[in-house]
Amino acid sequence: MPKPPPFGDTVSAGAGPLVGVVMGSESDWPTMQAACDALEAFDVPHERRVVSAHRTPEEMVAYAKTASERGLEVIIAGAGGAAHLPGMIAALTSLPVLGVPVQSKALQGLDSLLSIVQMPGGVPVGTLAIGGAKNAGLLATRILATSRPELRQRLDALRESERQRVTQQELP
Amino acid sequence: MPKPPPFGDTVSAGAGPLVGVVMGSESDWPTMQAACDALEAFDVPHERRVVSAHRTPEEMVAYAKTASERGLEVIIAGAGGAAHLPGMIAALTSLPVLGVPVQSKALQGLDSLLSIVQMPGGVPVGTLAIGGAKNAGLLATRILATSRPELRQRLDALRESERQRVTQQELP
Amino acid sequence: MPKPPPFGDTVSAGAGPLVGVVMGSESDWPTMQAACDALEAFDVPHERRVVSAHRTPEEMVAYAKTASERGLEVIIAGAGGAAHLPGMIAALTSLPVLGVPVQSKALQGLDSLLSIVQMPGGVPVGTLAIGGAKNAGLLATRILATSRPELRQRLDALRESERQRVTQQELP
Amino acid sequence: MPKPPPFGDTVSAGAGPLVGVVMGSESDWPTMQAACDALEAFDVPHERRVVSAHRTPEEMVAYAKTASERGLEVIIAGAGGAAHLPGMIAALTSLPVLGVPVQSKALQGLDSLLSIVQMPGGVPVGTLAIGGAKNAGLLATRILATSRPELRQRLDALRESERQRVTQQELP
Amino acid sequence: MPKPPPFGDTVSAGAGPLVGVVMGSESDWPTMQAACDALEAFDVPHERRVVSAHRTPEEMVAYAKTASERGLEVIIAGAGGAAHLPGMIAALTSLPVLGVPVQSKALQGLDSLLSIVQMPGGVPVGTLAIGGAKNAGLLATRILATSRPELRQRLDALRESERQRVTQQELP
Amino acid sequence: MPKPPPFGDTVSAGAGPLVGVVMGSESDWPTMQAACDALEAFDVPHERRVVSAHRTPEEMVAYAKTASERGLEVIIAGAGGAAHLPGMIAALTSLPVLGVPVQSKALQGLDSLLSIVQMPGGVPVGTLAIGGAKNAGLLATRILATSRPELRQRLDALRESERQRVTQQELP
Amino acid sequence: MPKPPPFGDTVSAGAGPLVGVVMGSESDWPTMQAACDALEAFDVPHERRVVSAHRTPEEMVAYAKTASERGLEVIIAGAGGAAHLPGMIAALTSLPVLGVPVQSKALQGLDSLLSIVQMPGGVPVGTLAIGGAKNAGLLATRILATSRPELRQRLDALRESERQRVTQQELP
Amino acid sequence: MPKPPPFGDTVSAGAGPLVGVVMGSESDWPTMQAACDALEAFDVPHERRVVSAHRTPEEMVAYAKTASERGLEVIIAGAGGAAHLPGMIAALTSLPVLGVPVQSKALQGLDSLLSIVQMPGGVPVGTLAIGGAKNAGLLATRILATSRPELRQRLDALRESERQRVTQQELP
Repeated sequence: MPKPPPFGDTVSAGAGPLVGVVMGSESDWPTMQAACDALEAFDVPHERRVVSAHRTPEEMVAYAKTASERGLEVIIAGAGGAAHLPGMIAALTSLPVLGVPVQSKALQGLDSLLSIVQMPGGVPVGTLAIGGAKNAGLLATRILATSRPELRQRLDALRESERQRVTQQELP
Repeated sequence: MPKPPPFGDTVSAGAGPLVGVVMGSESDWPTMQAACDALEAFDVPHERRVVSAHRTPEEMVAYAKTASERGLEVIIAGAGGAAHLPGMIAALTSLPVLGVPVQSKALQGLDSLLSIVQMPGGVPVGTLAIGGAKNAGLLATRILATSRPELRQRLDALRESERQRVTQQELP
Repeated sequence: MPKPPPFGDTVSAGAGPLVGVVMGSESDWPTMQAACDALEAFDVPHERRVVSAHRTPEEMVAYAKTASERGLEVIIAGAGGAAHLPGMIAALTSLPVLGVPVQSKALQGLDSLLSIVQMPGGVPVGTLAIGGAKNAGLLATRILATSRPELRQRLDALRESERQRVTQQELP
Repeated sequence: MPKPPPFGDTVSAGAGPLVGVVMGSESDWPTMQAACDALEAFDVPHERRVVSAHRTPEEMVAYAKTASERGLEVIIAGAGGAAHLPGMIAALTSLPVLGVPVQSKALQGLDSLLSIVQMPGGVPVGTLAIGGAKNAGLLATRILATSRPELRQRLDALRESERQRVTQQELP
Repeated sequence: MPKPPPFGDTVSAGAGPLVGVVMGSESDWPTMQAACDALEAFDVPHERRVVSAHRTPEEMVAYAKTASERGLEVIIAGAGGAAHLPGMIAALTSLPVLGVPVQSKALQGLDSLLSIVQMPGGVPVGTLAIGGAKNAGLLATRILATSRPELRQRLDALRESERQRVTQQELP
Repeated sequence: MPKPPPFGDTVSAGAGPLVGVVMGSESDWPTMQAACDALEAFDVPHERRVVSAHRTPEEMVAYAKTASERGLEVIIAGAGGAAHLPGMIAALTSLPVLGVPVQSKALQGLDSLLSIVQMPGGVPVGTLAIGGAKNAGLLATRILATSRPELRQRLDALRESERQRVTQQELP
Repeated sequence: MPKPPPFGDTVSAGAGPLVGVVMGSESDWPTMQAACDALEAFDVPHERRVVSAHRTPEEMVAYAKTASERGLEVIIAGAGGAAHLPGMIAALTSLPVLGVPVQSKALQGLDSLLSIVQMPGGVPVGTLAIGGAKNAGLLATRILATSRPELRQRLDALRESERQRVTQQELP
Repeated sequence: MPKPPPFGDTVSAGAGPLVGVVMGSESDWPTMQAACDALEAFDVPHERRVVSAHRTPEEMVAYAKTASERGLEVIIAGAGGAAHLPGMIAALTSLPVLGVPVQSKALQGLDSLLSIVQMPGGVPVGTLAIGGAKNAGLLATRILATSRPELRQRLDALRESERQRVTQQELP
C-alpha cells in the first residue's frame, strides 16, 4: 500500500500503542502482517502479540481485560478454523474488536469466517473478509479517526490516491 | 435489552446524529430496528433512513459523501441478498462502516453475508452476524466510546449487568 | 429413551456429579435437555448450568479450571452460532469435553458445527451432531464406563434393547 | 474459439463500441479477456476499461449513466469477492448488464457468484458461470443479434461448427 | 410492480410474441408469473408454456429450434432442482436465453442455481436470482429495448419512479 | 483394479456393446476412463463416445433414443459444471442411466453433483461420487449381472479379492 | 403416479420379491413409500423392511449377504443424516444398490446426500435426489427391465403418458 | 508434539493396547499417524490397523465386537468421503468411539465430516476436526485419564508447556 501523504505524526505523539494486533499463532503472521502494514502506513502506534484463546486462555483474559487501561482503543484479532479469539476478547473488553478470519486448510476459511462473525447479540465483533487483515488495519484507522481529524484527512487522501491509481490502469 | 444505568447524557448533548442507520428497503426495518434500539439504550443520537444502492444509487452517493461533514461518526448499513449497500458506502466515505447481512429467503442470509464481508483490500466493512443488527448498534457505541469515557463506562456496566443476569439463570 | 435395565446404582453411590452439562443460554435448554435425560437413564449423577463464554467468561474460566477437582470426569457443552463454549472449556481443563452444536436460526447449525469441531491441534473437543445432545449424554456414559464395568453392561443392554425394538418395527 | 465464417462487417460499420467490458481491477483481465476475444470473433466493436465500484465509485456512476448515450447496447461487468460492480451498473442504466463472477481465492468464486446473481427485484443482472467471461461475450452477441440478422447467422454458424468439431472428437 | 407511464404500444403493434416464457412444470407458475407480469407492465407481447426438458424433451427441441423463426427475440426459462431447461434451450437456439432458478424444497434453490448458471463455454445462459422471475422479465425488456428506444424510455421511467418511491419511504 | 478371476467370456460372446459410456467433452476422458477400465476388467463389451448435451443436442437425442434398440442395456454419462447430459439421456430412454459428476474447476464438482443427482420425480439418474467413474463401471456391471449369474460370481470374487488385499495391508 | 397401461403380470409371476426396500427407521417411511408406490405401479414384487445400519448392524449384514440367494435383484436403501445404510449394504452384496438420501432436519439432506453418494472406488451406490424415493423405484424397474422386455415397454409407455400429460398442461 | 514430562509408565504396565486406531485404507495413514504420535507421547499402548467398512465389513464387525473384551477402552476411527467406519464401529461396541474425517479430494473433507458427525440419536461418535487425528489421540488420552490420575497430570503438564511455548513466541 503506498504511504499516504504525511499530515504530521500527531497520532502517535508520545503515545503508547493505540491498536493491539493479536493472533492465535505465529503461523497467522503472514496473514496478519498486512494489518500492521496498514497501521504503519498511517503512523498508528500499535503492538503485535501471539495470544491464543486455546493455548493461553488466561493470558488472553488478562490481555483483554487490561487493554483499555493500557491505552488501546481498538483490538484486531486474527484466527483460523474454530476461531474463538476475536469473540472471546470482545467478551472481555468494551473496546471495539475487529476479527480477521485466517484461511484454513480444509475449508479455506469458511469455518474461520462463521466462527468469528456469527456472534450472539450482546458481544459484537466487526468481521473482515477471509484473509482481510489489511482492511482490519484500515478499519481500525477509520475508528481512531473518529476523534482525530488529521487521520481522517489522510484516509481521504488514501481513497483519492487509490482512485487516481485505478483510473490510470490500462488494459492490454 | 435492559437500559444500562445512566451516566448523564453527555453523548447526545445538543448534538445532531452521530450514527447513521441505513437500509435498502422498508422491509429491512424489522431486522434493523434492533440497531436503533441498542443505540437508544445508550442515548446515542442517530438517524435512520431507507437508502438503496440499487434503487437510489445517487442518493446513496450523496448520503455517504456528506456523512462526515454532517457530523456522523459511524454508519450502519443493512441489506440482504446481493447486498451492496455497506460496501458502496464504505467506498464513498472514510467513516467506519458496519454491515448487517439481512436474512434472505432462499439462501437464508449466506448470500447477504458473503456479499458484505468479502470486500477487497482497501475498502473495509466491519460485518456483523446474519441478522445481527443489535450488535451493529453496540459496536457503533463501542466505537463512539473510544473518545467518550462515560460511554465506555456504560458499556462496561452493560457487560456487568449481562454477566449478573446470566449467572442467575436457573435451568429446570 | 427407554430406561435400561437396572444394575444397581453403583455409579452414583454417594457421589457428587460426574458429568457437567453446560450451555451458553437458557434458550439452549430445549436442545440440551436430551443430554441430561440420557444421563439420568443411566443414573449418572450430573449437574447442569448456564455458563456463557461470551457473557460470563470469567465464570467459565473458573468452572472449567475447578471441574476436575470437583470430581467431574466429563464435560458436555452446548452452544450455537459462533459457538465458543466447548472449545474454551477444553482449553482450560484436561477432562474430556464433548460439544453439541445447537441449531441456529439463519444457518441451521452449520456455523455452530464448524465453530465447535474445527479445533486446532492440541485442544480436542469430541463433537456430536447438530442438536445431538442425547448422543453427548450417551458418549459421556460410554466414557465413564471405561472404568465402571456395570455401566458398560447397561450400555450393552441399551444397544440390545434398541436392536430388538427396531427389529419389531412394522411398515404399513 | 475458432472465428466464425465472415458475413461482412456490418456490425461495426463506422460505429463506436456497442459493448462495454468493465472490470474492477487489472487483475481481472486474465479472466475477462475471454469476453473480448468472443466479441472480436464476431467483429463486435467494444471497449474495455477498469472501473471499480469500490475504488472509483463516482467514475462508475458516470460510466453507467452515460453508457446508453455513448451508443453502448450491452455492458459486461466482471468482479470477484463482494462483487458489486455488475449490480451497481445495472442500477444506473437501463441497458442489459451481464455479470461475470471472477474466481476468488478463499471461496473460489462462490462469494462472487452470490454477490452478483442474488439481485433484488427491479435491478436485473444476467449472470454467467464463475469465470464465464467467454459466455458473457457470446450472450452480448446474442443480444445484439436480436436486431442484426447477419449476426444471428454467424451465431448459428458457430453453433454448427462447434457441433461438427465435437462429433469428430475421438476418444483413445 | 406499478405500471410505467405509457409511451404508446409500439412494441406489440400487430406483433406475435417477442418473448417466450417456458417452465418445466405447472408448479413453477407461481414463481414464473412475475416474469409475465413484468413483461405485461411494458406491453411486451409474450407467450407462456410448459415445456419440460425431462418429460417432453423432443417438444423442447422443437420449441427451441423454431423460436427464432416464429419471431421470438428472447426466451425466459425457469426450472428447479437439476434444472436443465435453460441450458438445453440455449444449446438449441442462438437467441438470448435467460434462466430463472426456481426455489427447490431440500436445497432451497442452490441446486437450481448451480444447474443453470455453471454452463460451459459456448452456450450462455443469463441467470437471475433464485426465484428472480420479475428480473427475468425486466432483463428481457432491456434486451428488446436495445433496438426500441421508446421501450428504453419506459425502462428509464420505471427506474425513476422506483427511485422516487424509495426516497419517500418513511421508517417508524 | 486387479482383473477378477475369469469365468469365461459369456458376457461378450458375439455381442455388440452392452454399455454406452458417453461424456460431454474429450476433456472428461481422464475421469471417465476408469469406467471403461472397470468394464474391461469384467470383459463387458462397451462403447465410448463424446456426446454433448450442449454442443450436439440432436446427436444426443438420437443416441439416447436408439440406445435400447442397438442393444445397450446401461448408459453411463459423465459431465461437469451445469451437467445436463445424464439427465437428458435419462429423459430420452428407459434404460438405466448412471451419472458421473466430473470435478469442476471453481466449485470442485459440487455443481456437477447437484446438477446430476437432483432430478425431478419420473426421470431417474443413479448418481455416483464426484469423479466416481470406476464405480459407474462397477454398478453397470452389477446391473448386467442381474441376468448373468457368471458375472455375479466374478463380482463376488472381486469383493473377496479386495477383502483379502485390505486384510493384508500393513501400517508402518 | 398414474398406473401405466398393463402388459400382463409376467414380472411377478409366481415370484418372490425382486426388489428389497429398506430404511433405517419407521420415520423414513413417509419418504420411502414413494419407492414402493412406483414399484407397485409396475407390478414389481418387492419387500419392505426397517433395517438399521446403526441399531441392527448384524441384521443388516445378514440381510445384505442373503439378498441375492433370496432372489432379490435390486436393493433400495433410504437413510438420513450420517446415512450409512446404502453404502454398507453395497459392501455386503454384489447386487445393484440404490440410495435415497432422506431429508434431514438441520442440514436438509445435504449430509444425507454426501454420506451416500461419496462412496470410495469399489463399492458403488447409485444415488437419487434428496427425497427421491419415487425415482429409486423407477430406476429399480429400469434395471429389472434390462432382462424383461415387457417391463421396458411399460416404462416406455409411462414416459409417453407423462409426455402427453405435460403437453396438455395449461398455464393461467 | 514435545513429549510431556514422564510420570512413570503406569499406563502401559504389562498391558495390551488400550486404544485401537483404525482406518479405512493405507492411504489414510499420513493423516492418522498423528493420532498414534499423540498416544505415544503419553506412553499409551495402542494398536493400529486397516479395517474398512466397505471392503472388509465382516472383519470390521468382528473387530468392533471384540474390542472391549480384548481390553481396548477407546477406538479412534478415521475415514474419508462417505465415511462410514466410525459410525459403524460405534454401532457395534459400547466403547467410546472417536471419528477423524480425512480430507477428501473434491469436497476437501466436508463430506467426511458430515458423514461422521451427523449420527442419529443412540449411536454417538465424538468427532474431531477434518484431519484432526492428533486431537483424537489427545482426546483418547483424556478419556483414559478419567481413571488414571497420573495421566491427567501429564495432560495438565502438556497444557502448561504449550502455554509457555506460546507465551514465548515472538513476532517479527
